[in-house]
Amino acid sequence: MTETKRRLNLNVGLNTTGYLPHAWKYRSGTRHDINDPAYYRRLSELAHRGRFDAVFFSDHPALLTDPHSRPFHTIDPLILAASLTAQVPDIGVVATISSTYNSPYNLARRTQSIDIVSGGRLIVNVVSSFNPNVAANFGNDPLPPRSERYARATEFLDVAKKLWASWDPRREGDVPEDQFWDASSAHSIDHDGTYFHVRGPLNVPRGPQGHPVIAQAGASEGGIDLAARHGEIIYCNILSRPAGRAFGRKVRDRAVSFGRDPSGIRIVPGLVVILGETREEALRKHELFSGTGSEDGLIARFIRENGLDPATFDPDAVLDAERFVPDQNRQWAVGMGLGLSELLAHETLTARQVVRRSEGHHRLLLGTPEEVADGIIDLWQDGTVDGYTLQPPRAPDDIVEFVEKVVPILQDRGVYPREYDGRTIRDRYGLPYPV
Amino acid sequence: MTETKRRLNLNVGLNTTGYLPHAWKYRSGTRHDINDPAYYRRLSELAHRGRFDAVFFSDHPALLTDPHSRPFHTIDPLILAASLTAQVPDIGVVATISSTYNSPYNLARRTQSIDIVSGGRLIVNVVSSFNPNVAANFGNDPLPPRSERYARATEFLDVAKKLWASWDPRREGDVPEDQFWDASSAHSIDHDGTYFHVRGPLNVPRGPQGHPVIAQAGASEGGIDLAARHGEIIYCNILSRPAGRAFGRKVRDRAVSFGRDPSGIRIVPGLVVILGETREEALRKHELFSGTGSEDGLIARFIRENGLDPATFDPDAVLDAERFVPDQNRQWAVGMGLGLSELLAHETLTARQVVRRSEGHHRLLLGTPEEVADGIIDLWQDGTVDGYTLQPPRAPDDIVEFVEKVVPILQDRGVYPREYDGRTIRDRYGLPYPV
Repeated sequence: MTETKRRLNLNVGLNTTGYLPHAWKYRSGTRHDINDPAYYRRLSELAHRGRFDAVFFSDHPALLTDPHSRPFHTIDPLILAASLTAQVPDIGVVATISSTYNSPYNLARRTQSIDIVSGGRLIVNVVSSFNPNVAANFGNDPLPPRSERYARATEFLDVAKKLWASWDPRREGDVPEDQFWDASSAHSIDHDGTYFHVRGPLNVPRGPQGHPVIAQAGASEGGIDLAARHGEIIYCNILSRPAGRAFGRKVRDRAVSFGRDPSGIRIVPGLVVILGETREEALRKHELFSGTGSEDGLIARFIRENGLDPATFDPDAVLDAERFVPDQNRQWAVGMGLGLSELLAHETLTARQVVRRSEGHHRLLLGTPEEVADGIIDLWQDGTVDGYTLQPPRAPDDIVEFVEKVVPILQDRGVYPREYDGRTIRDRYGLPYPV
Repeated sequence: MTETKRRLNLNVGLNTTGYLPHAWKYRSGTRHDINDPAYYRRLSELAHRGRFDAVFFSDHPALLTDPHSRPFHTIDPLILAASLTAQVPDIGVVATISSTYNSPYNLARRTQSIDIVSGGRLIVNVVSSFNPNVAANFGNDPLPPRSERYARATEFLDVAKKLWASWDPRREGDVPEDQFWDASSAHSIDHDGTYFHVRGPLNVPRGPQGHPVIAQAGASEGGIDLAARHGEIIYCNILSRPAGRAFGRKVRDRAVSFGRDPSGIRIVPGLVVILGETREEALRKHELFSGTGSEDGLIARFIRENGLDPATFDPDAVLDAERFVPDQNRQWAVGMGLGLSELLAHETLTARQVVRRSEGHHRLLLGTPEEVADGIIDLWQDGTVDGYTLQPPRAPDDIVEFVEKVVPILQDRGVYPREYDGRTIRDRYGLPYPV
């Protein structure tokens, strides 16, 4: 990999009405947007205007039927990736897929196919499903235990990498005139593992990126292992510099312990931005978009979510980090709860302060466009993070605001490109091509 | 369904270098076309110019590594469908998928997603995989027996139909201002069957076609059952009028026996067309494209494929139909062998005549554009078939020739449209919308 000037990488999450469940009340558009292909095209064009590296579709193969919330994941991410890259140039797509409920052959084939048809613009975010509602859509078996799900995810990616490399036209020798191809450019993989038995070869050849870039999102111990072995773009929640440095060090050290060169790892945590003409205006929008309505409401939610006693809790007392370490064995995503405990481990904060530091488990930046740009550059410039995955509370509104108000500042400060550079996602992230 | 003027439906098969394994030697282009997205776009634009209803991607999730043939199926059909419909207007896509090696939830979701992003242009061709090379890419289990594979395919489509209908925004009642949606528009399906246990609902709503059009391709008894229960567009091999009428009656009678209205079934068999300035020129091209080199070569291949004794076989003697009935229990696709025995059951033919009646198991039309147009209209005009799935020996060459030379004749004769009519594939095929 040639060394080029380091630059900020930005992805943007696109999920129906936006990232925050209650913010739809303040968005423009109608409920029909969420299944309208023109809407996703418009959001992707907007992301292109903002020179985002990729749009990010998180996923969950089950319908959340809470009547008081809204569907969060509908159109399949792989299908959106294939369709949107055909319509919008340059932009990459992060497609989330479950290693628990897909077969490696089909998935390796479909993702390599997208990488080919898009000219090298696919990032696959392999997740281990953790929700019983998902399991119920795929048979009678209960969800496997976390350790097994991560072991399976790891082997899933081992198999996918073998398949992605199994047919490589660069291995072709001379082809006699009466033959179409050199069939020895493809070879079987004969994978015979714990969870998967796959002969191969894949019937799709190596793509423009070698194979799609691999994103990884778990922050439990199993998730860190998976990130260290296979992850190239790490989506996580990092709420402060010390927490971010500790997290990055942990992933990279783990990679080294597995014999992997850690220079192929990029840390691109989630980020919620709420802009205002003034910080005060941004604070009020935060109270609305969070669905809590006021600062007292934010504090009441904090008390409720953390199982504290509202009668005795003092929102202006310093919080104890130990109190907020999540249980590694709980059902839902462990990583989502880690941000808060990591934050408190390094900073002395009250609940009143903490509720303004994160939203939807991610770092929250509130204020004027200049303040937000400062906050983004702050953790990027010393390498704590390599970029961010913007999670707009409302789509399209908060993407429009970010593109119009924050992006020009980042460009003026010379940390973010004015035009697309490179050909593939690997080029833009400075990631190595697999050999 | 409103009765409109009946018109010919045409699909065109797109598979790497074309339908016939040896014809690539006479095609334009390079071997790199087969994994070049621009190539598939160009073929689809060509199909659009010819006003084809759909491009058809057959499939097989394994790489055929015969060094003397060429890869026939590479980029995933679902991904091609999503990408090509985003780039080329109007045209539909038939995407072949295996009911043996996909889960109904993922497949129902991905196909409904494509139907939505394409505005109602997806046809799914559900096949039961029959090849041990495919099985070896999906685990250690041997291929299930044919009867089980068809039972599974039938239940697969039962589940898919329930899922496709499980979230229907038309069921929405009044939605209070503080709610985003009426969650009762989605309901679980609680399917508890022999092969599948799926709770639902699907997280993608009903699409523009209700659900994607269902194509079906098997002609064994299990395949006929599946076509009669679920098939809307039936891809098959029909080599003569009596054989076609018998086949159509069989499928429709079976549908009635299952309590299904047979008016929602269209017979669209495969068709190989080889054009020449004269019939003689077309015969010579047939000998080249088939890889046999001469009429004697065609006859020698017939002898070999049917296990006859070359020492005693007389190519000018009348053939006995009984001799050519395929074994229902053999591994590979039974339906592919049925065309010949059905042809011989109704016509008195010699081997010399028979080798010019089909190629690649499908009806073969050889001759001038006028002769080919006559042959197409012949079986269509009395309803023996509803249209054809053109299988060009070479791509792009034989699609170009057909579009430039045959399509204008069909249009001049008033049987084929000059412009796209209708909005969805259901509109163009006159197929009912699911309730």
